[in-house]
Amino acid sequence: MCGIFAYLNYQVPRTRKEILETLVKGLQRLEYRGYDSAGVAVDGPKNNKDNNNNSITLIKKRGKVKNLDEELYKKDSDLDLDAVLGTHFGLAHTRWATHGEPSAVNCHPHRSDKDNEFVVVHNGIITNYKELKKYLNSKGYEFESETDTEVIPKLTKYVYDNRERDTISFSTLVERVIQQLEGAFALVFKSRHFPGEAVATRRGSPLLIGVRSESELSAEHIPIQYNSALFKEGVQEKNIHNRPDAVGGGKAVEYYFASDASAIIEHTNKVLYMEDDDVAIVTNGKLSIHRLNRQAGEDPVRLIKTLQMELQQIMKGNFEAFMQKEIFEQPESVVNTMRGRIVFDTDTVVLGGLKDHLKEIKRCRRLIMIGCGTSFHAAVATRQILEELTELPVMVELASDFLDRNTPVFRDDVCFFISQSGETADTLMALRYCKERGALTVGITNTVGSSISRDTDCGVHINAGPEIGVASTKAYTSQFVSLVMFGLMVSEDRVSLQKRRGEIIQGLKDLPELIKKVLALDNKIKAIADELYEQRSLLVMGRGFNYATCLEGALKIKEITYMHSEGILAGELKHGPLALIDKHMPVIMIIMRDACYQKCQNALEQVTARSGRPIILCCQDDVEITKNAYKTIELPHTVDCLQGILSVIPLQLMSFHLAVLRGYDVDCPRNLAKSVTVE
Amino acid sequence: MCGIFAYLNYQVPRTRKEILETLVKGLQRLEYRGYDSAGVAVDGPKNNKDNNNNSITLIKKRGKVKNLDEELYKKDSDLDLDAVLGTHFGLAHTRWATHGEPSAVNCHPHRSDKDNEFVVVHNGIITNYKELKKYLNSKGYEFESETDTEVIPKLTKYVYDNRERDTISFSTLVERVIQQLEGAFALVFKSRHFPGEAVATRRGSPLLIGVRSESELSAEHIPIQYNSALFKEGVQEKNIHNRPDAVGGGKAVEYYFASDASAIIEHTNKVLYMEDDDVAIVTNGKLSIHRLNRQAGEDPVRLIKTLQMELQQIMKGNFEAFMQKEIFEQPESVVNTMRGRIVFDTDTVVLGGLKDHLKEIKRCRRLIMIGCGTSFHAAVATRQILEELTELPVMVELASDFLDRNTPVFRDDVCFFISQSGETADTLMALRYCKERGALTVGITNTVGSSISRDTDCGVHINAGPEIGVASTKAYTSQFVSLVMFGLMVSEDRVSLQKRRGEIIQGLKDLPELIKKVLALDNKIKAIADELYEQRSLLVMGRGFNYATCLEGALKIKEITYMHSEGILAGELKHGPLALIDKHMPVIMIIMRDACYQKCQNALEQVTARSGRPIILCCQDDVEITKNAYKTIELPHTVDCLQGILSVIPLQLMSFHLAVLRGYDVDCPRNLAKSVTVE
Repeated sequence: MCGIFAYLNYQVPRTRKEILETLVKGLQRLEYRGYDSAGVAVDGPKNNKDNNNNSITLIKKRGKVKNLDEELYKKDSDLDLDAVLGTHFGLAHTRWATHGEPSAVNCHPHRSDKDNEFVVVHNGIITNYKELKKYLNSKGYEFESETDTEVIPKLTKYVYDNRERDTISFSTLVERVIQQLEGAFALVFKSRHFPGEAVATRRGSPLLIGVRSESELSAEHIPIQYNSALFKEGVQEKNIHNRPDAVGGGKAVEYYFASDASAIIEHTNKVLYMEDDDVAIVTNGKLSIHRLNRQAGEDPVRLIKTLQMELQQIMKGNFEAFMQKEIFEQPESVVNTMRGRIVFDTDTVVLGGLKDHLKEIKRCRRLIMIGCGTSFHAAVATRQILEELTELPVMVELASDFLDRNTPVFRDDVCFFISQSGETADTLMALRYCKERGALTVGITNTVGSSISRDTDCGVHINAGPEIGVASTKAYTSQFVSLVMFGLMVSEDRVSLQKRRGEIIQGLKDLPELIKKVLALDNKIKAIADELYEQRSLLVMGRGFNYATCLEGALKIKEITYMHSEGILAGELKHGPLALIDKHMPVIMIIMRDACYQKCQNALEQVTARSGRPIILCCQDDVEITKNAYKTIELPHTVDCLQGILSVIPLQLMSFHLAVLRGYDVDCPRNLAKSVTVE
Repeated sequence: MCGIFAYLNYQVPRTRKEILETLVKGLQRLEYRGYDSAGVAVDGPKNNKDNNNNSITLIKKRGKVKNLDEELYKKDSDLDLDAVLGTHFGLAHTRWATHGEPSAVNCHPHRSDKDNEFVVVHNGIITNYKELKKYLNSKGYEFESETDTEVIPKLTKYVYDNRERDTISFSTLVERVIQQLEGAFALVFKSRHFPGEAVATRRGSPLLIGVRSESELSAEHIPIQYNSALFKEGVQEKNIHNRPDAVGGGKAVEYYFASDASAIIEHTNKVLYMEDDDVAIVTNGKLSIHRLNRQAGEDPVRLIKTLQMELQQIMKGNFEAFMQKEIFEQPESVVNTMRGRIVFDTDTVVLGGLKDHLKEIKRCRRLIMIGCGTSFHAAVATRQILEELTELPVMVELASDFLDRNTPVFRDDVCFFISQSGETADTLMALRYCKERGALTVGITNTVGSSISRDTDCGVHINAGPEIGVASTKAYTSQFVSLVMFGLMVSEDRVSLQKRRGEIIQGLKDLPELIKKVLALDNKIKAIADELYEQRSLLVMGRGFNYATCLEGALKIKEITYMHSEGILAGELKHGPLALIDKHMPVIMIIMRDACYQKCQNALEQVTARSGRPIILCCQDDVEITKNAYKTIELPHTVDCLQGILSVIPLQLMSFHLAVLRGYDVDCPRNLAKSVTVE
């Protein structure tokens, strides 16, 4: 929901300006996670009135990161931008409001008091903040914002003010604070009392740490320090950071804390993914990880991994928007999804991550596919072909509804969790729910090292590459291809299905070329958007294999054009939605030559009989349809169960053009964020 | 989709005016089935230019039945309204367009030629009409309308013109015609060549025959005459109508053919429900039933049954519209649904229709609930409580999508088919699909003798009484109560569920009083409608037990107000729909004190943070919610799983007031019909 970025330079001299630039650039990479306000915390200015020279300045601004960037260099600032700081720790945050309106006061970093003794950036949601706020109020702590986050720095100061001895460490403070918090969070702390030190922790929300050092890292494995004994007995802990196995080892080093790797990759490819309830601390340039207790089966070591991502993968290139770039990447991204997994000569499909669980999957009682938004639509889109190929009952569930209903789940169920980011809060909670009940869990994600990819028993990485546009496009088609590949893999030994499998595999092979043909229709689609963009409502209708296309197309339009678009099952038309049809209501219909062709034609007759003027997505050279259409978009034909990959693309393009014509920022739709890491 | 009515008086003298009045009144009762055009066929005028005196006049009019009624008495008519006709057969039809725009030429009855040799009324859809039309065109038959129906009279004339001998009977003609038809139909035929004779048949669409006679009926059981032998060998069939077991027996008698009982009940309560492929013929006042072949296991007799329905049950009373009357009937209709089924003293629930199948149901693999429109929403509304009480996986399926997907169904599945009319084409086809696969089938209908109630293995009649308003209201709440009762019945022997069961049964007992309290809010709801009625869009949000309420409330508003309303799962808000929220978009939120209360409050914060002004349905005296609301509608509290019955009613009322304010006919929404008997 929000983006966290923090930068610590230890014995690496940087001017304050360079530090601010690093912080702002980090935020810009994370802006897709939210952009209603942004803020930073840095040391300074030195102030003679203040006894403690380690003062901290907060700069916050409502709006996008660009607004903050301008604010930083205003002439009236007390900060000396050219001052060189040998060791420094700075925090930054881009926000997506969950509690309290977007405004400077609600913006992060939040602080413990007017002197900024403790400042915090937070991604997630604190569910017990009302109780904590009430308690802290009763102790005389005054609040300045409407946010849930503000209880964290206040609580930190309360713990600090009430410490049993002077020499409490920063990490101990934070450990005590997070024991009081309920909800989901990733947090990074900075304090006047601990200059040059950083503490970070997470529970439920993502956080990783990049490490950059000119010299070799002194350790690639970081052992965890279990603090329970120390903590309980209040033992002095001064020596634990001097162990030889801490990273850094007193030499020049830089650390980057971020909500995801895209903000780190331009600085370093060495990263450590934090686990829930890890407390990471940097003292004297050394990184170590603390935990309260060791759990059974827990790995007592964190690895520093090497990222394979390339910076150019996350740059916008020649396109107007990331979303547009990602739409046009789909001929390549679907190939990347299939690469190394399909042997076209032998009609063989092997998904390495599922191989060892195939027997268990084939024996199961049913498949349950769980996701939110676009990921849910990928489940709807592939449900029928999975029912056909696996001959199992397949259920599709919106993660939030699945949890609300306390849906019965059994040991012989196989549950799929679909999420581009792998961090979607509802989907992640559904995963935990299903694990508790003993089901086999399968992750379908686009983010290596994400919570869902780590917490599932097995899974498929869809390999679509980083997706920056808030409106998901290439992730949808890659999720779609991944799920179809799963069906093909499960059905490999069914003799009766071989012909069908062969057709689908051929269809997958041809897919990139066909997607290119669809993308070549861009100008035609733009012309239709020119006619539609002033409308307030829009209906998208289809059925069968293209029902999901309607839902997904309507969602794209909702997300970035703010037109009230709705996906409607054509079979339900007569049970209500037909009342909306008259000559004023724009209707897009999807009518492909498949088993539903005749039924879709009936729906078309219903619409034209009521003076509707349908824009129809149909197969090339379909004279019968073209006759009744107001406009057509003719698509190449492929096997029925893959047609939805081709038919969704014109709607992706349509939503893009509509949003541009209506004057909106395609990559930053109002009110939305890329990765929804709160419920 | 359309309404058929036909009236035959045999040796019962009636003026032509009386006959027309009977036909029009019949159509008015059926108008909820469609009302875009209407027509009648009667004998006359005697015309000297015509050698054959048995001429037939067609009168058709676009629009509602009222328009036709006015047309009939225009001064320029050739018809002698005061002429007394001893024996006469008249057809009438009210149409809902499926092929061809509403217009006089597309209106029924359709005819074979300009001389009206054969005229036909049809309800349903002929799927192979294009092929038939092409063939008949090639034989020189000219078509005048765009309808599928017109092939039927043309084909009848073609068979007649090419008969092998002069003395072919009317029923034989019709038998030959329907062998060529594909699709769904109920048909009534009239012909100049067979004056005073009626032929009726059906396949898939409903049709029943009322019989009125001053003397005792000569037979209550009508044996079926299997014609295959006669037909094949062309044997002369002149005597078959003189058998003593035919009804009528040559005495004065009247017959009423209609799509449902509401058009017949004011004339007689003796009715015969036709089965698929029955051909009913009245010759010389005698009714007999013909079939081609006897199928294995088929009952060779049709019963004349006595209807229990009262005429006043279908009258509008003091309300502005049937829909409004039906909303206000809900305190009684839910009691009728429970009557004789719940023993409140002992917490016992017995649904007579399911008693004998209870063991089989408890052993099943899963429950699948199938419906369309409002009936589907009743399934969504009760899914969670059925999951909880039965501890079985429960799937909900839109009938059309279920069929499109060729969903896997197994012998150990239990499938519920929910349909107010019991004739919904998609649901009926899904029933046949599941029967073929050996699943146990359960009907939940409001119409005794309907196709679904007859073709299921067992079922529950929801006893809501006739529902005339096209927008379903009391049927929804009665379906809801019926499905909850099913859950209570299945869970009777689960010790761990007794406390929960007791609470629900108490909740059901209190339901009528609580519904009355909700209905008392009508003025307040009207006042909110006054503010909203000029809006173009409206969102309805909720989750958990109230997700279905959102879907159903939004559907009601779509159906009768033509506003683009959409039901949105509050948990999906952040995955897209939140982009629609600004201060202009009206939002109704449902936030009840149940397990989702906190999560719904989060959604409310999301909406208010974006300047939305939510109208909130909440529990009485919920200060926390009232604070953040633009307006509230406070409802009495009941057990969580029944709250949806109370929370849907304000939305029913809201849709009613919005439609009235917008100037629309509540009972006859444009483009829609009550009972959707085509796919």
